[in-house]
Amino acid sequence: MHTDKTIAAVSTAYGRGGVALIRISGKEAFAVASSLFTPKKIPFDKITPRRAVFGDICHQGRIIDSGLLTLFPASSSYTGEDTAEVSCHGGMLLTSLVLEAALDGGAVLADKGEFTFRALMNGRLSLSQAEAIPDLIDAQSVDKLRLSADNAGGAMEKRLADLRQRLTAVISSTYAFIDYPDEDLTELSVPDMTAILEELKQQTASLADSYRTGRAVCEGIKCTIAGRPNTGKSSLLNLLCGEEKAIVTDEAGTTRDVLEETVPLGRVLLRIRDTAGIRESDNRIEQAGIARAMDKIADASLVFFVLDASSPLTEEDERLASLLVTQGKEVIAVLNKSDLPGRIDKDRIRALFPRTVETAAKNGRGKEELAACVDELYNTAILDDGGEIVSTARLCAALRQASEDIAQAISALKEGFTQDIAALSLENALASLTDSTLRETADDIIQDIFSRFCIGK
Amino acid sequence: MHTDKTIAAVSTAYGRGGVALIRISGKEAFAVASSLFTPKKIPFDKITPRRAVFGDICHQGRIIDSGLLTLFPASSSYTGEDTAEVSCHGGMLLTSLVLEAALDGGAVLADKGEFTFRALMNGRLSLSQAEAIPDLIDAQSVDKLRLSADNAGGAMEKRLADLRQRLTAVISSTYAFIDYPDEDLTELSVPDMTAILEELKQQTASLADSYRTGRAVCEGIKCTIAGRPNTGKSSLLNLLCGEEKAIVTDEAGTTRDVLEETVPLGRVLLRIRDTAGIRESDNRIEQAGIARAMDKIADASLVFFVLDASSPLTEEDERLASLLVTQGKEVIAVLNKSDLPGRIDKDRIRALFPRTVETAAKNGRGKEELAACVDELYNTAILDDGGEIVSTARLCAALRQASEDIAQAISALKEGFTQDIAALSLENALASLTDSTLRETADDIIQDIFSRFCIGK
Repeated sequence: MHTDKTIAAVSTAYGRGGVALIRISGKEAFAVASSLFTPKKIPFDKITPRRAVFGDICHQGRIIDSGLLTLFPASSSYTGEDTAEVSCHGGMLLTSLVLEAALDGGAVLADKGEFTFRALMNGRLSLSQAEAIPDLIDAQSVDKLRLSADNAGGAMEKRLADLRQRLTAVISSTYAFIDYPDEDLTELSVPDMTAILEELKQQTASLADSYRTGRAVCEGIKCTIAGRPNTGKSSLLNLLCGEEKAIVTDEAGTTRDVLEETVPLGRVLLRIRDTAGIRESDNRIEQAGIARAMDKIADASLVFFVLDASSPLTEEDERLASLLVTQGKEVIAVLNKSDLPGRIDKDRIRALFPRTVETAAKNGRGKEELAACVDELYNTAILDDGGEIVSTARLCAALRQASEDIAQAISALKEGFTQDIAALSLENALASLTDSTLRETADDIIQDIFSRFCIGK
Repeated sequence: MHTDKTIAAVSTAYGRGGVALIRISGKEAFAVASSLFTPKKIPFDKITPRRAVFGDICHQGRIIDSGLLTLFPASSSYTGEDTAEVSCHGGMLLTSLVLEAALDGGAVLADKGEFTFRALMNGRLSLSQAEAIPDLIDAQSVDKLRLSADNAGGAMEKRLADLRQRLTAVISSTYAFIDYPDEDLTELSVPDMTAILEELKQQTASLADSYRTGRAVCEGIKCTIAGRPNTGKSSLLNLLCGEEKAIVTDEAGTTRDVLEETVPLGRVLLRIRDTAGIRESDNRIEQAGIARAMDKIADASLVFFVLDASSPLTEEDERLASLLVTQGKEVIAVLNKSDLPGRIDKDRIRALFPRTVETAAKNGRGKEELAACVDELYNTAILDDGGEIVSTARLCAALRQASEDIAQAISALKEGFTQDIAALSLENALASLTDSTLRETADDIIQDIFSRFCIGK
């Protein structure tokens, strides 16, 4: 990305529409705009900032449309640079000609997310805000959208800034001691400092914990349906997906032909793996076996363990159950065929798997109970608390690291080290929490984040 | 359409984008906007008209995005009503929630083109301007786009207003005579009036004539490729289309399985009928015949009459040729296989069809010559004159009618009728030219025009 250049792009979706928006940002943005836009009533240089003016849009000396132009000086623009927004009719050829006129006028084509990248470079956004924007745009559930909006809007950044500020205050309080170690000049007593740090540790840890919910809502949970043949795995899959609703996606970055269907259940997204396998093999005893089950659950976070409630536990059920217990996976035991007379040992199942749901998948029954179970498992109730929820692995890891660093400082104090020694760990914690802004963020993380943007944002 | 209601719609194209625009228009537009948008820095009622303000966008009490709001009072809006434009991030769910918030706030969903319809009702646009907007949005050629932009921008409307004004001046000049017939009080002598009317007649007629070019550029020319088998019809089709580029469309409103390919040639569009038939039957002598050829040319405006230049004219060629001559179709004779030694009687062909082009379609030669011939035939040079060009059949017919009415007035004067009698025909001419605005335009024409709009415009 070339921040010295003035960039231009079509910022609205590609396609036929009433209106399209071409955005131009950079030092020459107003000059570029003046090369293609002539206001109807006033000279170009008399345009009031942020006021929409009507005028003619030109391409190669010919008027190709009339529309609105709004100029945003650097101080009040999204990017933190002079920005011009031209709105024209939403034709596909028309829009591309307006963009071409901007390029003819001296702009270069913007890269994916380059407007936001410049906003980030100019301190108009934090990295955690920028990162939430593609999620906001791609959100397919209201919960994900709200959560992304909170993050994009800066609520998370504000929370992090608050944590940083309190941590900085603690660190500063130790400076006096560093300067005058003999005079015992600390501003904060060791017990007071410990108390504050305990609170900060708890808060960073609990914020990191919220990623359990944030991930379930935003990314989705890798999930597998396991069980011996003929327990009703494919019926359960159909109950969850509905044949039509399933969104089948190729797994990116692998060469294996694994299909994943993303299915909303309750307020979380399930990413159910190997659904084709389930559909094919449920009634083919010869294909089953422990090896296959192991494969399927290996990289799942959540397993729906399907059992036939109308027949006693088989040896195969038992072997799968103990496998799941030893693997330490999150398991929901699904007692299927609960519409038939029950012959399964429910107490034994409940002892092994506290989360047990009865379904009659073939009859379409049990989805609500499963949804409630999943919502409880991923603690989605916190979505309504109004608190910040972490939605990226990167931020979760940073918070986790900060929490550990603070814990280390607390240990140091408890072991009798001086406050300035403890402060060394706190400096690390502060660095972790500062990671969420541009400073110290590695280029490849930035690149990864911006690859998810569309052009024009 | 319900003009008392406040309407809302997503005005940008449907899809994933950086930015989307939701437009709200009507008496309650500002109230609806205030129900979903909270400016960051000022109270809502302190927003300056036409100034973009930054703020939070709410849906059911939760912030779902931040974005820009611009309020346009009726006096400066597109629709001539109070209008609010909310721009948010371009997510599909997000955009639909912002729209939902507008509907929750009291707006109703806008019909196709309803914003423009209101602009028309409120006198902000003429019908000929409104009509050009879908063409502008759908334009796939730069010429069509420029022509539509001229019309949408009001250049045509200005020209019509000028004609109306001059016609009105002539009519008014006869009022004195009507009021005081005995005093010979006309303001304009009969020879002067005749001279002015001759000029107006010529101008309306020539404007109507421009539709020949306007139609070729905007709608396209219905065109057929005819010729006896083995002359190279399918090679010519491939030369014109290129296999990949052809846009195949079902013909609307018919039950016959007729396919049409829209192909640009030179600066005009050709709508080539029955292309599947050409591809199939070119080498099948048994399927050919005069009956079939007649069918194919029946509703074409332009016929490419393909002849094999490497062999003498056959009886079948001769019969087709005389059929084309008697039918009075526009014909371009295509002397194909001109790379082989010529054995056809070119002079005879040129005598029958003044427009003759030599091609070697199979070798990819002759497309430029055909393009030049078509451009000349449809007089596309006038596209660069900067004059107004009619692009709709409706306006062409109105101008043709006006021209005839003026001719009738001229005849009346020549036959010695009084100026007030001649003025009766001029009143008709004026009515025809006024047809192009909303007054006197039948509802079904309006409906037909607006069915071509997308929602949100």
